[in-house]
Amino acid sequence: MLFGGLSAFPITPADPNGRVNVDELAVLLRRAGEAGVASVGLLGSTGSYMYLTRSERRRAIEAAVDCLGGGTPVIASIGALRTDDAIALARDAQAGGAAGLLLAPVSYTPLNDEEVFQHFAAVAGATGLPLCIYDNPGTTHFSFGIELLTRLAGLPNIVAVKSPALPAPDMPARHQALRSALPDDFAIGYAGDWNVPGAILAGGLCWYSVVAGLMPVPALKLMKAAQAGNVAETERINRHFEPLWALFRELSSYRVIHAAANILGLSSAVPPQPILPLAPDDRVRVEAALGVMASL
Amino acid sequence: MLFGGLSAFPITPADPNGRVNVDELAVLLRRAGEAGVASVGLLGSTGSYMYLTRSERRRAIEAAVDCLGGGTPVIASIGALRTDDAIALARDAQAGGAAGLLLAPVSYTPLNDEEVFQHFAAVAGATGLPLCIYDNPGTTHFSFGIELLTRLAGLPNIVAVKSPALPAPDMPARHQALRSALPDDFAIGYAGDWNVPGAILAGGLCWYSVVAGLMPVPALKLMKAAQAGNVAETERINRHFEPLWALFRELSSYRVIHAAANILGLSSAVPPQPILPLAPDDRVRVEAALGVMASL
Repeated sequence: MLFGGLSAFPITPADPNGRVNVDELAVLLRRAGEAGVASVGLLGSTGSYMYLTRSERRRAIEAAVDCLGGGTPVIASIGALRTDDAIALARDAQAGGAAGLLLAPVSYTPLNDEEVFQHFAAVAGATGLPLCIYDNPGTTHFSFGIELLTRLAGLPNIVAVKSPALPAPDMPARHQALRSALPDDFAIGYAGDWNVPGAILAGGLCWYSVVAGLMPVPALKLMKAAQAGNVAETERINRHFEPLWALFRELSSYRVIHAAANILGLSSAVPPQPILPLAPDDRVRVEAALGVMASL
Repeated sequence: MLFGGLSAFPITPADPNGRVNVDELAVLLRRAGEAGVASVGLLGSTGSYMYLTRSERRRAIEAAVDCLGGGTPVIASIGALRTDDAIALARDAQAGGAAGLLLAPVSYTPLNDEEVFQHFAAVAGATGLPLCIYDNPGTTHFSFGIELLTRLAGLPNIVAVKSPALPAPDMPARHQALRSALPDDFAIGYAGDWNVPGAILAGGLCWYSVVAGLMPVPALKLMKAAQAGNVAETERINRHFEPLWALFRELSSYRVIHAAANILGLSSAVPPQPILPLAPDDRVRVEAALGVMASL
């Protein structure tokens, strides 16, 4: 199943002009593929998709598919402000060899439900690839209600949702509400690394993971414990991640994972300006959090 | 003074592929120029800037400057997700003949104050044009605190702010807080048409106006009454706008003003998809609101 298991969302290393460094990207992708993640979520929010041109996004997809050699499927994010641009990006992703699509309702003028529905219908109908709804209110400022998700789940090719995980005590009720409203074969997965262990224990099928894009081995350990329903082992492993989760919450996973990639020597890339690299004091805190993970 | 008086923000008519219709744009600009607005705010949020390519934005600026013939200055919005793109747009605006710049901190990954500061410093320093800070939390999801505004006001070329107007009872304290914190020659203007009459009565120098981009004559009547401090006349005129303001609040000024342009026969353009034209029932309500204005 494409939209199940651990999906690793790497950063997309690029130079200050927005040119993707496919060699550094390949280093991250090979780590994920060799660790055995279920899929790679290319060009997600962590992968800076909204800051890259159409041609660079196409280059990144082709490089990823080439590097992973069909062993690990690539799910490509294709969000854009305009519907015609998102359609073009979906077709590029298909032509470039992506196995699936991830679509967020990126907005400038805030969108209403009908606009999002028609946007998704147009984009999902533009290729034959399966499409996952990317519900990420922190960046899109749009939240999917269950009624809209249910309507979208009735459209051809729309087969999954990447939903923001809630704190563990709220997850069983939330997951049940989604599960009972959506078709049985509709895949419900979660993002927001620090809350995802609880979401998997509650029944989530997929972890769309920032940390797995950089450190797939410990992320897989955590995912497997949660998938097995082993609460004690999940909590034990999760404690090693907690300092990193605290920094994700405080400074954003996007900024922190870029700093972590620099610290681990896996990429020299910084985020696209206006987003700034972490201040030296915060970088030291990321180093400390990585140290706690190393003892896992 | 460039950032004072009534600034008219027209829609940017474009075809479904995002090609600007410069003839329809010229119709709107001539109306504004002939009515005697202080400036034209081209490619604002109302002008769909985030949905247009760099080359189309450049075309729109050149057409506007050509059409207005230097009689009415053009303030061009240059917002972009990437700092280098915003710099390129600022240089295009200068080369195209714009008199000033309007810069919003457009975001996907939410930005922090230091990132916005450095973004503005880089863009403001890229041309010799005066720049107005575009504080529009409804679309950018970033709010400028007074401390950040004060820092930005100390940079070369940054000379004005376009601030979201608050309801009338809150405006005197808000305007005084901004006025006392910012340099004496820093121009404080307001947007959010339905609240702006109160903001001008409170001392605001500029009305960055959606309605003036389509109906500059009644907008000027309202602006002049408020600038003269004539509360009774301001309220009398504003009552004719109130049905339109109610629709702006409910459906967004962006959608409503596009429908109004269609109804008045001034443009056949609809917003770029995913944004949809108003439903027929809502369009009828816009017609009724325009009827109330016609009796002004």
